[in-house]
Amino acid sequence: MSAAAPEPPESSIDAFHRGAFFLAQPAGRGHRAGLDAMILAAAVPSGFSGRLADLGAGAGAAGLAVASRCPHARVVLVERDPEMLDYARRSRALPGNAALRERTEVLDADVTLAGEARAAAGLADRAFDCAIMNPPFNAPADHTTSDELRKSAHVMPPETFEQWIRTAAAIVKPGGALALIARPGSLQPILAALAGRFGEARIVPVHPRAEEEAIRIVLRARKGSRGGLSLRPPLVLHEAEHIFTQRADAICNGKASLFGD
Amino acid sequence: MSAAAPEPPESSIDAFHRGAFFLAQPAGRGHRAGLDAMILAAAVPSGFSGRLADLGAGAGAAGLAVASRCPHARVVLVERDPEMLDYARRSRALPGNAALRERTEVLDADVTLAGEARAAAGLADRAFDCAIMNPPFNAPADHTTSDELRKSAHVMPPETFEQWIRTAAAIVKPGGALALIARPGSLQPILAALAGRFGEARIVPVHPRAEEEAIRIVLRARKGSRGGLSLRPPLVLHEAEHIFTQRADAICNGKASLFGD
Repeated sequence: MSAAAPEPPESSIDAFHRGAFFLAQPAGRGHRAGLDAMILAAAVPSGFSGRLADLGAGAGAAGLAVASRCPHARVVLVERDPEMLDYARRSRALPGNAALRERTEVLDADVTLAGEARAAAGLADRAFDCAIMNPPFNAPADHTTSDELRKSAHVMPPETFEQWIRTAAAIVKPGGALALIARPGSLQPILAALAGRFGEARIVPVHPRAEEEAIRIVLRARKGSRGGLSLRPPLVLHEAEHIFTQRADAICNGKASLFGD
Repeated sequence: MSAAAPEPPESSIDAFHRGAFFLAQPAGRGHRAGLDAMILAAAVPSGFSGRLADLGAGAGAAGLAVASRCPHARVVLVERDPEMLDYARRSRALPGNAALRERTEVLDADVTLAGEARAAAGLADRAFDCAIMNPPFNAPADHTTSDELRKSAHVMPPETFEQWIRTAAAIVKPGGALALIARPGSLQPILAALAGRFGEARIVPVHPRAEEEAIRIVLRARKGSRGGLSLRPPLVLHEAEHIFTQRADAICNGKASLFGD
């Protein structure tokens, strides 16, 4: 940002899926957050029908993107942060989202809750057909981690995935799905947390350019399946600086699903 | 193979790296075994200097490929199967491998040994700068696994990786490397076994064609490192049926390293 850039407004309203839905969100957030949410949403099959929980929904980007692309999805945006909850509610209330409002709700709940407390917060066992999650990279516990570990690994504390995936396994019906987006460095705690809960994990690495390391992984798995892990061809985002590949453009704009289903 | 094909001989002598070295091996083994070994060998940096253990070396394909490409590598082919040990010794003795013989030895030892028994077998702690491994897909314990699990997961018993990586961690010096090739379905037990032993894991998925699922992963990691996992761009083997991509051809023929170092 140049020194001459205007003071950023407190919040903004941004169009996604080429104007199919809108998001009220704090201004000054990077482009990446929206991109991650769009890619995560694309992991849900286009024909998905049923209840979907967007765990840690923030302003609702991923959940609304699923509702926008999948006309039979009923989406619950789950968030615990009061400010982000407010943005999620404002997003849902935007005039441009009127068509999605009936299939969307906002739930004030902490994803890391367990047992009766979780059910009491509105996340009942086996109440969903699918859960999606884009856990925050800088979870509160991160601040207690040593500088060296944070610098070298760029991962969340392993317990974050254990807690989030434990909740997903509880609230999803047998045979239901979990989709998540995360950094490649989190693969080990993710796979450890999936073990015994979700199988048939399919991973798509996301590379900024074909010749660069993956910056994200998208994973989809099925509750109770014994099926093994598979690695799909990568999603390459850019052909050149600021130019999306055709596939990335379709995926980020709600025109294609990531797993081709 | 057509019905008119001649009876296969009991063993064959095959050229690798375009005639740079040779392998005596049982005939009738699939093309894949050699290809896996060549790709694994390419995970070792070209400038590698020091002692390298090829754990479960079989006839010696991967270890000899390292010796062939890396002129300062001293390679120990570690094998426990009497028949394959004999092939490894015959491979080493082939006239076409005379240039590698001084930097190569064969060790009769079981990779799954631990503690004093392992050291007594010739695998002393911190005696190597690098270990490479292509663990058998059909380990003996596999036969006790339920049909359903074998069919669905296509993985070895998790304890195989725990045992093999435990040995690699013991015999490699601090800061030394481990490289392995395996099926994507084995990723979880591999990452679990690496934890606390090897860090800075770099993974290259290997896809038969650009649009198909990965059939292998190659992983290289550093002993004692706290560095996080990274996912490199994939290695795509074929452009069309039976036609290697330029990169795959260079890698399989000892002309390039997999990680570009």
